[in-house]
Amino acid sequence: MTDYIFDFIGGDSGPWKVTKMNTLKGLPLEKVSHIKRQPNSILKSNEGTWALKGVISNLRYTEKGEKEKLIALQEDIGRASATHMAMIPMRKSESWWALAQDERRKIFENKSHHTQTGLKYLPEIARKLYHSRDLGEPFDFITFFEFKPEHANYFDELLGYLRSTEEWTFVDREIDIRMIRV
Amino acid sequence: MTDYIFDFIGGDSGPWKVTKMNTLKGLPLEKVSHIKRQPNSILKSNEGTWALKGVISNLRYTEKGEKEKLIALQEDIGRASATHMAMIPMRKSESWWALAQDERRKIFENKSHHTQTGLKYLPEIARKLYHSRDLGEPFDFITFFEFKPEHANYFDELLGYLRSTEEWTFVDREIDIRMIRV
Repeated sequence: MTDYIFDFIGGDSGPWKVTKMNTLKGLPLEKVSHIKRQPNSILKSNEGTWALKGVISNLRYTEKGEKEKLIALQEDIGRASATHMAMIPMRKSESWWALAQDERRKIFENKSHHTQTGLKYLPEIARKLYHSRDLGEPFDFITFFEFKPEHANYFDELLGYLRSTEEWTFVDREIDIRMIRV
Repeated sequence: MTDYIFDFIGGDSGPWKVTKMNTLKGLPLEKVSHIKRQPNSILKSNEGTWALKGVISNLRYTEKGEKEKLIALQEDIGRASATHMAMIPMRKSESWWALAQDERRKIFENKSHHTQTGLKYLPEIARKLYHSRDLGEPFDFITFFEFKPEHANYFDELLGYLRSTEEWTFVDREIDIRMIRV
């Protein structure tokens, strides 16, 4: 067991009640009423309707100046007042992964302003990225967001912008799951 | 089971006969006489004295121009005449992983010339990188090299250079395992 690999388990129990599951691209996930996140153990869990694994890893595109701004502004997930959450498993196409590092960075930031846009919504929209691609999972990432109920529209605005970018043309599976903490 | 996650199993059987195991930094691995590589299955293997897992992943630092040169020059591992091999499990320090992407790239290439140096030894020294860090493994990478017996000194020269670089000051565990195909 490690403290940086997690299972997100969708089923009929857990601290997060699902309010909406919306498949934007690719195959859907089976509908569930609750989701929980737990530290991964070596044995594959048979719990729940589905289980998605993700690992907290090092930064892949963020540069020094951006990192310093993020650290200055962001708050960690787990704030008691941030009762609304979104979990967005997504996958990018093989053509994305075949690009060299500088080509991906150019699309990610120079053209799509991914980090700069996320910064505008800090600290209200807290975010945590879990990497799944190298774990043999069906998704490449699980992005987890947390915010106060009054910032839900604010969050939709952020997502709307990101989904209009060149980076998102490489997304070939995306499921937007909204939850509230119970 | 996937076709990009592999287990390297050290024990008393396998197609690769170990000729030397040299710990350069950090804890050693238990001595074994043979090593095999097999596709990873979900169940943890209890085979062998030790098992190290690694995943073939996307490029992390390589830029477009470098990638094109690599593709033009490199040969895949598995050449019948390349009977000599090295497997080098290594780990980098937390201070490396805490750096932003541009800081790591600067040390990796601008200062340490990692890719440029590797290119000089192509196609003679074939190389394959397996990522382990995000799998909860004791090493961050397993680098696998393959060459003809007459290029063994050439390979040592390449390693000697890399180990003298600023990048290598971040390496905190490294085991150099030499093998021949039996």
